[in-house]
Amino acid sequence: MIIHLSKDITEKEKSALLAKLQELNIKSNLVSTQFRNYIVGIASDDFDIRTIGNLSGIDDIHRVSDNYKMVSRKWKVNNTIIDLGDHVKIGDKELSIMAGPCSIEGEKQIENTVQHLLENNIKIMRGGVFKPRSSPYTFRGYGIDILKLFYKHCSANGIKVITEVMQVSQVEEMIDYVDIFQVGARNSQNFNLLDILGKVDKPVLLKRGISGTIEELLSSAEYIFANGNEKIILCERGIRTFERAYRNTLDLNAVPILKDKSHLPVIVDPSHGIGIRKHVKTMALSAVMSGADGIIVEVHHNPEMALSDGHQSLYHQQASIMYEQLRLTRKFMTENL
Amino acid sequence: MIIHLSKDITEKEKSALLAKLQELNIKSNLVSTQFRNYIVGIASDDFDIRTIGNLSGIDDIHRVSDNYKMVSRKWKVNNTIIDLGDHVKIGDKELSIMAGPCSIEGEKQIENTVQHLLENNIKIMRGGVFKPRSSPYTFRGYGIDILKLFYKHCSANGIKVITEVMQVSQVEEMIDYVDIFQVGARNSQNFNLLDILGKVDKPVLLKRGISGTIEELLSSAEYIFANGNEKIILCERGIRTFERAYRNTLDLNAVPILKDKSHLPVIVDPSHGIGIRKHVKTMALSAVMSGADGIIVEVHHNPEMALSDGHQSLYHQQASIMYEQLRLTRKFMTENL
Amino acid sequence: MIIHLSKDITEKEKSALLAKLQELNIKSNLVSTQFRNYIVGIASDDFDIRTIGNLSGIDDIHRVSDNYKMVSRKWKVNNTIIDLGDHVKIGDKELSIMAGPCSIEGEKQIENTVQHLLENNIKIMRGGVFKPRSSPYTFRGYGIDILKLFYKHCSANGIKVITEVMQVSQVEEMIDYVDIFQVGARNSQNFNLLDILGKVDKPVLLKRGISGTIEELLSSAEYIFANGNEKIILCERGIRTFERAYRNTLDLNAVPILKDKSHLPVIVDPSHGIGIRKHVKTMALSAVMSGADGIIVEVHHNPEMALSDGHQSLYHQQASIMYEQLRLTRKFMTENL
Amino acid sequence: MIIHLSKDITEKEKSALLAKLQELNIKSNLVSTQFRNYIVGIASDDFDIRTIGNLSGIDDIHRVSDNYKMVSRKWKVNNTIIDLGDHVKIGDKELSIMAGPCSIEGEKQIENTVQHLLENNIKIMRGGVFKPRSSPYTFRGYGIDILKLFYKHCSANGIKVITEVMQVSQVEEMIDYVDIFQVGARNSQNFNLLDILGKVDKPVLLKRGISGTIEELLSSAEYIFANGNEKIILCERGIRTFERAYRNTLDLNAVPILKDKSHLPVIVDPSHGIGIRKHVKTMALSAVMSGADGIIVEVHHNPEMALSDGHQSLYHQQASIMYEQLRLTRKFMTENL
Repeated sequence: MIIHLSKDITEKEKSALLAKLQELNIKSNLVSTQFRNYIVGIASDDFDIRTIGNLSGIDDIHRVSDNYKMVSRKWKVNNTIIDLGDHVKIGDKELSIMAGPCSIEGEKQIENTVQHLLENNIKIMRGGVFKPRSSPYTFRGYGIDILKLFYKHCSANGIKVITEVMQVSQVEEMIDYVDIFQVGARNSQNFNLLDILGKVDKPVLLKRGISGTIEELLSSAEYIFANGNEKIILCERGIRTFERAYRNTLDLNAVPILKDKSHLPVIVDPSHGIGIRKHVKTMALSAVMSGADGIIVEVHHNPEMALSDGHQSLYHQQASIMYEQLRLTRKFMTENL
Repeated sequence: MIIHLSKDITEKEKSALLAKLQELNIKSNLVSTQFRNYIVGIASDDFDIRTIGNLSGIDDIHRVSDNYKMVSRKWKVNNTIIDLGDHVKIGDKELSIMAGPCSIEGEKQIENTVQHLLENNIKIMRGGVFKPRSSPYTFRGYGIDILKLFYKHCSANGIKVITEVMQVSQVEEMIDYVDIFQVGARNSQNFNLLDILGKVDKPVLLKRGISGTIEELLSSAEYIFANGNEKIILCERGIRTFERAYRNTLDLNAVPILKDKSHLPVIVDPSHGIGIRKHVKTMALSAVMSGADGIIVEVHHNPEMALSDGHQSLYHQQASIMYEQLRLTRKFMTENL
Repeated sequence: MIIHLSKDITEKEKSALLAKLQELNIKSNLVSTQFRNYIVGIASDDFDIRTIGNLSGIDDIHRVSDNYKMVSRKWKVNNTIIDLGDHVKIGDKELSIMAGPCSIEGEKQIENTVQHLLENNIKIMRGGVFKPRSSPYTFRGYGIDILKLFYKHCSANGIKVITEVMQVSQVEEMIDYVDIFQVGARNSQNFNLLDILGKVDKPVLLKRGISGTIEELLSSAEYIFANGNEKIILCERGIRTFERAYRNTLDLNAVPILKDKSHLPVIVDPSHGIGIRKHVKTMALSAVMSGADGIIVEVHHNPEMALSDGHQSLYHQQASIMYEQLRLTRKFMTENL
Repeated sequence: MIIHLSKDITEKEKSALLAKLQELNIKSNLVSTQFRNYIVGIASDDFDIRTIGNLSGIDDIHRVSDNYKMVSRKWKVNNTIIDLGDHVKIGDKELSIMAGPCSIEGEKQIENTVQHLLENNIKIMRGGVFKPRSSPYTFRGYGIDILKLFYKHCSANGIKVITEVMQVSQVEEMIDYVDIFQVGARNSQNFNLLDILGKVDKPVLLKRGISGTIEELLSSAEYIFANGNEKIILCERGIRTFERAYRNTLDLNAVPILKDKSHLPVIVDPSHGIGIRKHVKTMALSAVMSGADGIIVEVHHNPEMALSDGHQSLYHQQASIMYEQLRLTRKFMTENL
């Protein structure tokens, strides 16, 4: 059960409401986000919401039978649109494209990529500065200093920055230099990190776990929302299966299912989702057709020299063709399907 | 290594060739299909094909490094097109749509479905008469008699029949009443059945195993080809994973990969691939966008009364809209991507 | 619901019973095995079995809520013991060991193996004559002729033969030369084959499917029982997962669960279950500790020269040590746990 | 390649060595643990270690072809034994048993459990104070205060404490109140947390990821070692598969494989590994038979009232019987196998 508190609810009314809920043996969680205040009540299935509906200080009450509550579409029918400023929105009519290298490797690379994005009218640049790597002896990213450089070039050109955050202490360090925090597949159930990201007013792109279920993805998103941040973007990036012909199994079933179950925008990562350069465009197009709100994709001005994931990064020229086709496809869908 | 024998190779030339191969310690397999004769030679990787290239009776020689040979695109660059007659082709420019109920349940149902297909210009009707069911106490299909009825109505209306064959002895019994034999996921590695289907001149639609790899699917197809039947259609229908929000994980990565590795046409089954009626259309459209040559889909004039799979069968009216959109999408792709 | 019919039930009583069931809207399946006659009734959960309990011709009635019925322990509390004659039993107190090569390769090999089994007091020899292979160009077994030789040597030495049957037509051909039919993982849901094996009076060892669930294994066993054969042995042989450090994931959880859910004996195949020779003994011992009634294991007098699965076959000397340890472990368990 | 530096290596010798390695184009990582100093060099496969073998300041050089280096058995043949003090060791001849509730729920529960452990001569108590939970609205543990109480009771009774750490900032807060840090399955690739745990001198029990591979588990252990902590315990706790008859698939194949590939001790968690109380003992015994150095198991004085995982927690009386049988089994193995 989700109770929307009135903007002008008095402390006295709030106390009365909480007391009433306690009396009814309903566990209450106060959720205060950048937009408004809610109470999430965990009630039994046969609870009659009219019992409390007439209390003052309440705007609305919704029954939500899912285990996740705030991220469910059961109470919020309209799509959540995330506004990054400068007319950049995610979840809106326009397809969102986030492109850039796996890792930020240097100023030259940043400049090259920014130039490529400007030419293609791409508004969001991806690039890792903290890299989760299975071996401690491999490249783990250039860290906070290069992030500042990355952000400087992007903001100077009206481009938004998305980059991965890996631990609680990095959030504060990074916050002035990111427009979207990315949570990687390996941190999809790092609940302490999710808690902190719920306490900042920056959008969070949350990747599905390596073998995470759709329910787990939504529950992790719920952590962020319950801590106070409504600006959440879900990301399907492929799951681990037995198949060895490609890197991960991109689960496009997840797109219509997530759009059905949740009001949050859904982005697809075809680069990790198949892991083979020549097939990335096809899977990106398929993702758009499955209803994704956008694509996050690895591109590199010189993939052969990339410090990581070069084999799945698109050449800039390839990518330009892909962006064009993705937009055409979205337009086709809007007009015809 | 694949050796194409000349149409007019003499027995003497053939013997000389086989002797030469034996001398070179190459294991030879004679493959005689409805179209031509080949020898599949299993040679070491560093074998120099020029060693035998000048023997007489040979049209061409190709090195194929895959474990599967005849179904590989490494020797046959052009797509295989399967001609069912009456201008019905699979793997051609036009999208193939196969639609019909999970099970053939009676004459009335057949008539209803045929009518629906005619109205929508669908040329291939699906429908099971032998049903693989995990419990022996459930409905297992109405068998050969209803197949005859099914075929009678379809052929009278210019519609081709595709239906599942489950065991060797059924092949002969069914052959006059089917246009395409379907091999189900559970029989994907029933090698004796594949052997027999390689000896008939009817197309075979081969489904990927429940947790079958792409390599295994192609190896199973190789069985059919090696026994003499080149008319093979590959079918992606979802794999088993841990995800419980839907029935199977439709693996659209498999489509570009299969099209890349093999010259055979690829069909996608969105009905089993997601198993939820309201999402079937979305996954069918995504499958087309991923490069599938066609779709096989469950429709029913009255899904609530279906003897099996009613929950994933489309209503006829829903399906009509879907066919239209699938064709529009294919047209869009041809003209724009 | 399972109804045990009296041995001396009259046709009239049977008709009355079936009529009564039909009247009660219960779907009835007559199951006649080598031991007795049953009716499996598919009733709603709240059916009161006393409604029919007083009809004549009935010995007993059991409610079974599982989807599988005859193989459930819910009606038969005692373990099924399968008697192969000559004091060889499976599911009894003594641990069953089945050993032999992957494929029967020749008379010399048969003699070597028989000698090894005699020295170790092993009563059941395994060995394939029809081999399921993913490629049509690899060795597929020496067939029925070598089976006859295999059986001749074994029966002359009091050793029972277990070998894989792959298709319906082989059952009749093989029946005089096998003591246990083996159904491989790839045929675990070949329902037509299971039907036929239910109609013969020979034990069947049924392997779990490559990604088969425990429920599916029991449902496949139900097919055999429902067709009339109570002599079924379940076999855990590892499932397909993403792990690449070994061949299959041996699922020993399945052993206590199968023993809990079913009255049938459970055998474990550690050779396929891990696929690495040096670890086979450890997994065989663990399987015994998990409660398995026996082990089926690949041994070869010369694994380096084996036509298949040599890398996971034990040397005879290794195997002798293993047998001894398996028996000691079983004795330890009986006396101490 | 692993280079053991001499205890008395001079700074000059070290510089010369590093310079030589750089000259040879070998990437060097200095690893300083609580026991000694190493250099991990990432060299090409055909590097001849004699090239540097004669430099001064070096005790030994080992070639290690695995991706993980320090945790590999390729350079350290003997088992690592972890000494917790007070004669409590892990990886030694004696079986290690860690038992206790899922969550620490209060002083009464702690006292009850300590009493139970004392009666059964169990030296290590498990119990969570920070709980990873998929929903933000469920119980997440009583935190640092109850940990202090937990530790007070245990240390007063000579019992060691193992508890889960979930984030970097908790390490310092917890370090005086834990004897073993536990890293849960969801944090198995939380590389920042692993880094920090490598910098403290406390043993770390590292659980395999929910769908983590054996290679990934060892690579995560490598993080801890490479940061300076040699005291690592590996833990198999079941992987996620499609099977629904139990909670996770306990992968006992992993035990002999981990023991073969690494010198680190291996512990098995049968509680999460099967998730059904009545089968926990069987899987614990099987784990011991598979070669595990110990068991970590959930017990509760009143499972029906447990705040989490009650259904898989053993009653104290059940557990006492299990401990006895586990020890008997280990003794049987030592004397007979």
